[in-house]
Amino acid sequence: MIIVLRSGSSDAEVEDVEGRIVSMGYRPHTIRGQLRTVIGAVGDDRGKERLRALESLECVESVTPILQPFKLASREVRSADTEVQVDGVTIGGRRLVVMAGPCSVESRFQLLDVAHRAKAAGARVLRGGAFKPRTSPYAFQGLELEGLKLLAEAKRETGLPVITEVMEPERVDLIAEYADILQIGARNVQNFSLLRRVAEARKPVLLKRGMSTTIQEWLLSAEYVLSGGNPNVILCERGIRTFETSTRFTLDLNAVPVLKKLTHLPVVVDPSHGTGHWEYVEAMALAGAAAGADGLLIEVHPKPEEALSDGPQSLKPDRFAALMRRLARVAEAVDREI
Amino acid sequence: MIIVLRSGSSDAEVEDVEGRIVSMGYRPHTIRGQLRTVIGAVGDDRGKERLRALESLECVESVTPILQPFKLASREVRSADTEVQVDGVTIGGRRLVVMAGPCSVESRFQLLDVAHRAKAAGARVLRGGAFKPRTSPYAFQGLELEGLKLLAEAKRETGLPVITEVMEPERVDLIAEYADILQIGARNVQNFSLLRRVAEARKPVLLKRGMSTTIQEWLLSAEYVLSGGNPNVILCERGIRTFETSTRFTLDLNAVPVLKKLTHLPVVVDPSHGTGHWEYVEAMALAGAAAGADGLLIEVHPKPEEALSDGPQSLKPDRFAALMRRLARVAEAVDREI
Amino acid sequence: MIIVLRSGSSDAEVEDVEGRIVSMGYRPHTIRGQLRTVIGAVGDDRGKERLRALESLECVESVTPILQPFKLASREVRSADTEVQVDGVTIGGRRLVVMAGPCSVESRFQLLDVAHRAKAAGARVLRGGAFKPRTSPYAFQGLELEGLKLLAEAKRETGLPVITEVMEPERVDLIAEYADILQIGARNVQNFSLLRRVAEARKPVLLKRGMSTTIQEWLLSAEYVLSGGNPNVILCERGIRTFETSTRFTLDLNAVPVLKKLTHLPVVVDPSHGTGHWEYVEAMALAGAAAGADGLLIEVHPKPEEALSDGPQSLKPDRFAALMRRLARVAEAVDREI
Amino acid sequence: MIIVLRSGSSDAEVEDVEGRIVSMGYRPHTIRGQLRTVIGAVGDDRGKERLRALESLECVESVTPILQPFKLASREVRSADTEVQVDGVTIGGRRLVVMAGPCSVESRFQLLDVAHRAKAAGARVLRGGAFKPRTSPYAFQGLELEGLKLLAEAKRETGLPVITEVMEPERVDLIAEYADILQIGARNVQNFSLLRRVAEARKPVLLKRGMSTTIQEWLLSAEYVLSGGNPNVILCERGIRTFETSTRFTLDLNAVPVLKKLTHLPVVVDPSHGTGHWEYVEAMALAGAAAGADGLLIEVHPKPEEALSDGPQSLKPDRFAALMRRLARVAEAVDREI
Repeated sequence: MIIVLRSGSSDAEVEDVEGRIVSMGYRPHTIRGQLRTVIGAVGDDRGKERLRALESLECVESVTPILQPFKLASREVRSADTEVQVDGVTIGGRRLVVMAGPCSVESRFQLLDVAHRAKAAGARVLRGGAFKPRTSPYAFQGLELEGLKLLAEAKRETGLPVITEVMEPERVDLIAEYADILQIGARNVQNFSLLRRVAEARKPVLLKRGMSTTIQEWLLSAEYVLSGGNPNVILCERGIRTFETSTRFTLDLNAVPVLKKLTHLPVVVDPSHGTGHWEYVEAMALAGAAAGADGLLIEVHPKPEEALSDGPQSLKPDRFAALMRRLARVAEAVDREI
Repeated sequence: MIIVLRSGSSDAEVEDVEGRIVSMGYRPHTIRGQLRTVIGAVGDDRGKERLRALESLECVESVTPILQPFKLASREVRSADTEVQVDGVTIGGRRLVVMAGPCSVESRFQLLDVAHRAKAAGARVLRGGAFKPRTSPYAFQGLELEGLKLLAEAKRETGLPVITEVMEPERVDLIAEYADILQIGARNVQNFSLLRRVAEARKPVLLKRGMSTTIQEWLLSAEYVLSGGNPNVILCERGIRTFETSTRFTLDLNAVPVLKKLTHLPVVVDPSHGTGHWEYVEAMALAGAAAGADGLLIEVHPKPEEALSDGPQSLKPDRFAALMRRLARVAEAVDREI
Repeated sequence: MIIVLRSGSSDAEVEDVEGRIVSMGYRPHTIRGQLRTVIGAVGDDRGKERLRALESLECVESVTPILQPFKLASREVRSADTEVQVDGVTIGGRRLVVMAGPCSVESRFQLLDVAHRAKAAGARVLRGGAFKPRTSPYAFQGLELEGLKLLAEAKRETGLPVITEVMEPERVDLIAEYADILQIGARNVQNFSLLRRVAEARKPVLLKRGMSTTIQEWLLSAEYVLSGGNPNVILCERGIRTFETSTRFTLDLNAVPVLKKLTHLPVVVDPSHGTGHWEYVEAMALAGAAAGADGLLIEVHPKPEEALSDGPQSLKPDRFAALMRRLARVAEAVDREI
Repeated sequence: MIIVLRSGSSDAEVEDVEGRIVSMGYRPHTIRGQLRTVIGAVGDDRGKERLRALESLECVESVTPILQPFKLASREVRSADTEVQVDGVTIGGRRLVVMAGPCSVESRFQLLDVAHRAKAAGARVLRGGAFKPRTSPYAFQGLELEGLKLLAEAKRETGLPVITEVMEPERVDLIAEYADILQIGARNVQNFSLLRRVAEARKPVLLKRGMSTTIQEWLLSAEYVLSGGNPNVILCERGIRTFETSTRFTLDLNAVPVLKKLTHLPVVVDPSHGTGHWEYVEAMALAGAAAGADGLLIEVHPKPEEALSDGPQSLKPDRFAALMRRLARVAEAVDREI
């Protein structure tokens, strides 16, 4: 931490701060400049917020951390890329893994139809929501257990492993029986009880970025899962809240190279939620691949205009197949394959 | 809903959309303008997203709702202000209710000291965190059950009712035994399982706005609690995420008059989290009162520089007492009292 | 500046960075921690960006300034509050100065009507736009010179000094003939040519915050005017861009106490543009006063529903008068008067 | 426009609004729903804000435009892509045009060195700032006229046409003598006087998005240039302001497909300003190409660590050449070439 004192701080104040730094287990290193005295608190300050409390002293102007606050998620602790194995599919390796399927599981016919067509087009994982987090209590909340069973059936028929969302700590075990990847949605990225619970599950976790989560906070949420014992965390950028309203969210592809620098965890991009409109999904899927993403999460629905959720952002199977053909070319251009 | 068709839509397309509107239970009303055909779908569209799926039709340019999507939270369903009764304290009435106390309960001495001094200064409710949502898994996570017991003791000693945060559905009953108001934190504003669970509790709920929650989404979260059977919801503005970094969040006081127009629920302001720095708390507390808030939530700590959480934004008891004296004058200027 | 080196930096790299710091005129002070080496560059780095270029070295992780980059605008250079004198009105003193009038000057009748009624209600300065910055080229662009002449006439009739916007460097002299305060609009806050030009004018300058301008950048824009020789700068918060759409902008009242800490310049709040809707203007005007603003800028129009610009946010004269009565009470509660 | 009346509006109020709509030249079309009366105002409302003023009537809840407010920039007025010709280079055609060079022209050696190496790597246009908009008045402000002359020399030596920024209306003619493309910077995107002035120039204009400009507002700024008589406008996405601080701005690539849908104008992406850090430039340049951009604007400097501006985001010539090799492959994958 770097502690900047206010202009005109007395020697007694400087000593007081130094003493507090020592008592918290750090070594103070004081630099007296022309206009400010700055004290470095030497020691491992990752994840420790207590030094920040010094900011409440009247003689302290600011307290600034030097190190990123996460450890296990960092490249420093593990420099090699993490590869997450999901039932024969590797996420974080050379292959760009496309996960496709409907927003919500709505019926047996709908799900199997999409699953077969998504697989034929090259998808490697089937997505589908059974328990749905809905902004309104009056909106369709998912088929729940029946949805999970349909996902299992679609897996048996197609061989595609399944990703589905888990919203509550007490349902983690149930969902882990049916799902190959547990998805934590954007609204639960800082639901710490849920994070602690999926850390104990044996299944990989796909952790979506919250709509106003900084990359640092997001990696701290990943740290909850990693430090709880589950090393198989996949990060998924899905759009942040900004002032722009021509897209539903602002898909932040900058997060891809930033994450690749900071962490060894695989990074997936969701252009469907990120843009909120089917017409923009293809361009942003290609862009995500070119930016270096390890995978994509794409919503496909046989009749988007009748979808019970997220119709406007779902692709019809034919459009999805066309996207996959273009995606194969972009993937190859960045030395990957789909 | 208002459905705008793309330029050049054919009569067949117009009829197709009209047919779909009818089949979803609405009455279509078509306006053919010079440049666009617009179809109004007449009917109660609150909370119904299905019409939005029409946006995925190629002939549809946009689908725009007309009504706010919440019902029970709206002034239309209930025009009179809701007054929430908490153990002799009325929130939403003439009195501006100040809730004060430490961010985290850290020790018996700390809590009782603050509780007595907050009460002496005019606070009507005691706040204190026992289960803490922390961004980092390595940070202090609260005294948990011991913290709840200390809150109960402080209540016995001072008579102040207690507000504390609940983070997990399965802990709602436990916390409701000790707390008079259940606080839902900003990170859980869209934790729908938790909202459904506190809807069943017999205690009032204070629902903080998420850091990127629109006012409309926030009221839909309140609607989860109201429609679940608990009418005693208090809304708490606590700052949103913006580009500005000189404050930790941007306390959005505009939310106060907007909420007063849209909803009958009481509105409380948290200038401590909203600004993140003790030096700005007083100004924003006074401003919140002037804007029409029904209450304030303020962090007070006997030694902020040693606090285990949120030290930089906590007031010392003396400063809090000074704030209360100024607040009394502003409250009176807007025909209220503290 | 604080330069943090990457983990594993060699001694040669540390020396290279130290050498560069010396050659740029600073004194390096190196702290070798367990996990990082940190180098403080001691010297006055205000307004000097060159050290930041070190961030492009591969061994450098980050470069963080210690001092605020503005000087003349800072409390360090001048601790006492600046009071700006405008034709008998003091902005920045004990009186809370209300500047009122229409968004655009539209006609002689409209302007004189508003001017008389605003004065009667207690306004001290008349606002009105003659040259209007309009988002669309097809919108009303202002009465231009005729508007300036009407403002001058209204001043003669009422005695109220006049504030109006200047958009172009080459029109500064013309407008300064008619106006008592030159307003720089939000869209021109970083129009540096214009800032340099008004720095040479003899008239006070009201500098609106841009809709995405940080407080630090805003004070650097003020620094352009101050360092150019014009000490009479008034800052005006008028709302920033955020994700929230229920108000047109998000009036950021937090800026008031932040500015009061950082700068000696007077601070004015514009609740009309900040909220974009007349129903929210009164609450935010009172809140601005309670937060410590030195003045308010409020749009008043005799027939808002026929206004050529910004009708939705304009108050009718009667509402304005009612607001002023409430404002007088809040002002008194914070030891000021209107 | 769609005018929504408040619940409980009387027949007289409905008639009053209808009458106002007629008097403004539109045809009212009233839909009486169960909960609200909605009035469509039929007519061409592009660029006309006057109807919005109806929002100030007490019986009106909201006024929502149906049409995009720009005309000449829209696909409706011109469906075919605009191709801008710049001295033998076509922007908006099949070729992905890379514009490269230093942030600021700093010296003859620096500029010529970069120009030759950028050309050798495949750049088609040379960028370089002579007049620089700087946040701080104390920062390097550019070589001004000398910089323009050096750009002209570099053009003579390399044959690369030149793009440079223009900040002031009165310097447009001077800069147009030396530059092939006039760049309007992010801070001037709503400097309407400047937009009107470059509309009269005979040179193409590259219009950067402001850091908080919506896509709609940006296209209205383009409309100023188009409606002023200059059809050669190139749009440049360069990052918007969001809460995320790990990049300097958030490069919003979503803008590329959104613009491609709304407008016929060519779209260029600036990953240097958009990310603010050289390590992220390559990934976002490739992503921009995959998203469908017509060109890229990239900062290249022989010694970024000594740059007088924007060092942290500048690429060294070798890195730029490596980027171009990868870019050629991605361009080919989306049926373009560099």
